[in-house]
Amino acid sequence: MAVGKGELPEFQVINGVRIGVAKAGIKYPDRKDLVVFELAEGCTSAGVFTKNAFCAAPVVLSKQNLASSSPRYLLINTGNANAGTGTQGMNDALQCCQALAELTQVAHTTILPFSTGVIGETLPVNSIIKGLPDALSALNEAAWADAAEGIMTTDTRPKGASKVLDIAGHRISISGVSKGAGMIMPNMATMLGFVATDAKIEQGLLQEILTDCAGLSFNRITIDGDTSTNDSCILVATGKSDAPELKRGTVELAQFTTALKALFVELAQAIVRDGEGATKFVSVIVESAKSQQEALDVAYTVAHSPLVKTALFACDPNWGRILAAVGRAGVNELDLDAIIIHLDEVCIVSNGGRDAEYTEEKGQQVMNREEITIRIQLGRGRASETIWTTDLSREYVTINAEYRS
Amino acid sequence: MAVGKGELPEFQVINGVRIGVAKAGIKYPDRKDLVVFELAEGCTSAGVFTKNAFCAAPVVLSKQNLASSSPRYLLINTGNANAGTGTQGMNDALQCCQALAELTQVAHTTILPFSTGVIGETLPVNSIIKGLPDALSALNEAAWADAAEGIMTTDTRPKGASKVLDIAGHRISISGVSKGAGMIMPNMATMLGFVATDAKIEQGLLQEILTDCAGLSFNRITIDGDTSTNDSCILVATGKSDAPELKRGTVELAQFTTALKALFVELAQAIVRDGEGATKFVSVIVESAKSQQEALDVAYTVAHSPLVKTALFACDPNWGRILAAVGRAGVNELDLDAIIIHLDEVCIVSNGGRDAEYTEEKGQQVMNREEITIRIQLGRGRASETIWTTDLSREYVTINAEYRS
Repeated sequence: MAVGKGELPEFQVINGVRIGVAKAGIKYPDRKDLVVFELAEGCTSAGVFTKNAFCAAPVVLSKQNLASSSPRYLLINTGNANAGTGTQGMNDALQCCQALAELTQVAHTTILPFSTGVIGETLPVNSIIKGLPDALSALNEAAWADAAEGIMTTDTRPKGASKVLDIAGHRISISGVSKGAGMIMPNMATMLGFVATDAKIEQGLLQEILTDCAGLSFNRITIDGDTSTNDSCILVATGKSDAPELKRGTVELAQFTTALKALFVELAQAIVRDGEGATKFVSVIVESAKSQQEALDVAYTVAHSPLVKTALFACDPNWGRILAAVGRAGVNELDLDAIIIHLDEVCIVSNGGRDAEYTEEKGQQVMNREEITIRIQLGRGRASETIWTTDLSREYVTINAEYRS
Repeated sequence: MAVGKGELPEFQVINGVRIGVAKAGIKYPDRKDLVVFELAEGCTSAGVFTKNAFCAAPVVLSKQNLASSSPRYLLINTGNANAGTGTQGMNDALQCCQALAELTQVAHTTILPFSTGVIGETLPVNSIIKGLPDALSALNEAAWADAAEGIMTTDTRPKGASKVLDIAGHRISISGVSKGAGMIMPNMATMLGFVATDAKIEQGLLQEILTDCAGLSFNRITIDGDTSTNDSCILVATGKSDAPELKRGTVELAQFTTALKALFVELAQAIVRDGEGATKFVSVIVESAKSQQEALDVAYTVAHSPLVKTALFACDPNWGRILAAVGRAGVNELDLDAIIIHLDEVCIVSNGGRDAEYTEEKGQQVMNREEITIRIQLGRGRASETIWTTDLSREYVTINAEYRS
């Protein structure tokens, strides 16, 4: 199940980035499961990674390598997360990087490894190493759609977004892919997002931009509240467009980051739309909160409530469950009479109870929609936050009872 | 679905407490849905109530009345929670109390009302008032099993516990009933628990004892993390046994509270065993944490993880999901290598990864059991906590997609 069509866009080529995809037989035969991104010399790269304390071996190594050198390759495998694998996991990730470094004649510290799939099993290093020559010989600027497919696990469809900007008369392109369908409550970024642009941006600034963009996109989605051990998101700027370098505080940078944020939100929302067992795409907006944290607390409490999620699955306008979730979100001295809750355009709660104008028919009309906005006004401040989530279906349980993630 | 047999005990009569149950047709015809507890003059009573900010009208009124007088009647209806009903809900709850007060010739402030069922619909006051004479004419000391049945909603079976103690040569009895199967993460108590003893205990002390007992029982269970708007637990001491008053700091009181705590745990666990769609009864024990709060944070993160819960449903020894949940519980500076995790007697995680002795067969053996303990040693302090929970099954989704709570 998935919400909406979710077709891939026509990807813009990013000058300076080539992509090679291979079938390495890591978990399943005949499946694209190995992806190599080649980054031209002179690219800047930034990354955000999971805050799960049990972060996977490739995450540890990618963070180290990103801090110490300018990445030349991203090496991604699906079918195995190389997480919870202790010292051997670190050695395995390193061995894969070294094999790719040897084939491409770069330092192994310029390679960032990423893994996704089952936790706690040994990485099939040999399969990955055997697949590398195929991936390298496939390197191609136009393989973004292949990359979107090559990083999928329980995803039912590939996810990507692409944009061309005209900034002060110069053409700048951005393309990105993402994956994820379960174990989704990214805490810095999701597993996985790869975005590249041909803009020229200095590394420190690029990292700031990425942290901002991930904060408002990948860090605002939740499917099941389970933060993965492998979440990673990488942003690369190749500097190969003819546009001048984007610098801090300029109109050009603002124009670029606005577009980049929109692209990140698109990629993050694509993950929610393809959430495991999802039949609804739900925006939870909390307004007039005292602080951002308070708004997020309320939004996540509603988004994680199994009772709210099953009501959404059932198309049941069960506003009492939303109200109960708001009430248990831990907000101090909540004034119940000040709270207003809408389902799309229909006011469901005001003055501490069901809105006087509300009818079951109006609620039912909204709940039958595939995309729904729950808007909660707390009436106590100026902060607001938006997050995106799904319903909870029998299919979610089936997928996670049968799939070993 | 439910775990284990869960048969009702043989209830001890509590001298000073009579119970009357009626079929008032509140939501369904021909169903025991109205319960009256009559408490003799001179009883002491204590209560703990939901911390959900949207607490229901009967909770507000019960708290008020308990604070201002010695309760003579508990009035409980199922089929309607009278929550999210604003001012009308308060008037409705009051009207029911007034009707019972008139029939029994007591002050209406000595009546504590409790409601459970669908949120946000108007309380059918007339049905309740019409049912009162039947309930009163049924008043009987031996009707505890009827009470257990009369407070059920989505529960698949009634829940009760009963004990006789010999304290310094005197016989003291305790009996109690509880209900709840969904919207269960009590925050003070669960919806609903009623416990009575014929011991004599002064009101202030009784409240302390109840708060302690509820803290270690009803406040340590979770089915879906959703704290109800109506959670309430009442403890009554009739003082009708021939035992002397139980006083603070005595061996007799310690003996009594030990037994009472065990009875509370039994009632709380009965709710988990009958959790909506439950096929497993799971104890999550966190040991060697730095603080109680840290131990609880880790325990609840594991207990609420949809991925851990669906793996339990699938009998899949997917220890990677437990590890990922521990990792995202927000514990600062967690030393991964110090963590040890057991499934029952099988060590699954040590030294930051899968335990060297672990085999899939050993894990599978444990996961096939109906009752499982997940024991997590953090290796960083002396605090420990235990909570109880269930798996997440397709049946849970079905129940909550179809039932309007």
